[in-house]
Amino acid sequence: MIYPNSLADLIDCFKKLPGIGEKTAERLALSIIDFKKDDVDFFANSLVNCREKLQRCSICGHITDKEKCDICSDERRDSKTICVLEDFKSVFAFEKVGNYHGVYHVLNGLISPIDGINPEDINIASLIKRIEGKSGIELIIALKSTVEGEATSLYLQRILEDKGVTISRLSYGIPMGTEIDYLDEMTLDRALEDRKVIS
Amino acid sequence: MIYPNSLADLIDCFKKLPGIGEKTAERLALSIIDFKKDDVDFFANSLVNCREKLQRCSICGHITDKEKCDICSDERRDSKTICVLEDFKSVFAFEKVGNYHGVYHVLNGLISPIDGINPEDINIASLIKRIEGKSGIELIIALKSTVEGEATSLYLQRILEDKGVTISRLSYGIPMGTEIDYLDEMTLDRALEDRKVIS
Repeated sequence: MIYPNSLADLIDCFKKLPGIGEKTAERLALSIIDFKKDDVDFFANSLVNCREKLQRCSICGHITDKEKCDICSDERRDSKTICVLEDFKSVFAFEKVGNYHGVYHVLNGLISPIDGINPEDINIASLIKRIEGKSGIELIIALKSTVEGEATSLYLQRILEDKGVTISRLSYGIPMGTEIDYLDEMTLDRALEDRKVIS
Repeated sequence: MIYPNSLADLIDCFKKLPGIGEKTAERLALSIIDFKKDDVDFFANSLVNCREKLQRCSICGHITDKEKCDICSDERRDSKTICVLEDFKSVFAFEKVGNYHGVYHVLNGLISPIDGINPEDINIASLIKRIEGKSGIELIIALKSTVEGEATSLYLQRILEDKGVTISRLSYGIPMGTEIDYLDEMTLDRALEDRKVIS
């Protein structure tokens, strides 16, 4: 036991964070000793606040510190275009782009029978309720292209078949700035298949 | 402003840690949302504790959560062998090796007139007081080999000249496991000069 107790405790806490190993946890914990008292208090309060105040938006399932998230509350956003995402992290990724003016629906998981995750275990029922009886709805499915993502996408297509909803998905293709010869075969194949006439 | 306030605050806190950029801070803060409540509370308490309870040991200047650190309090340690270090992080490095049974003296800085750091600004007076009137003291100087480290080492040698103290320094040489052809010239030169007869 080479560290004083309070330091050892803090190192253990940092080690629980993703991607933080023993060495980094030590470096981070040791740096706290030189922090200003106010900064440390603010850090401690932010941790507790973040855990306690954040909740799921009652409409879209995104995280928010209100009952209804800022995106669902924003009347300038097009509530007829709903982008379906796996988790709230993807919402932040879209919002950073800043070019999407519709709303979101966060599934909070993907269908995966092998892991015991069935349609009723993810946030699908509220999506159905949300679009029921409305017309002119476009659902943009933005799920990853794994077995689970595809299964969830297919399930949504099937149950929404007769509801008059337009369903689209993000385009597959080469990521911007990538060298063609480094691309995997599947991506290149999809990019070829989905090619666009440009002149 | 794409993040809820409480999350944005926490991201800002993580960004203040050394080596943590925007992206990593976001990833760490988002991970807190999935933490158990108890773990978050413990993390917050550890932060505050670490900042509030840790103080300098009244004897050696190492950090501790008591008035006198565990090393200075340990009677099995040889209090006549004092290893002089720049900061408390070096103490932890030595303690991890686990093969040193003397005590430490943490200078908490190095002499650097160009930065306005003079001998009286670092923890030297308490070192002199600590060895005054005692016999058989060995001082192991373990400071880095920069201008500041050398200046501090020379200063200590000069003021302790007539106090009957044995002064040693760590050996210079090739780090274990290093390829000889990757070594810098200065290190290789010192390793040659300090070579040891082995048979």
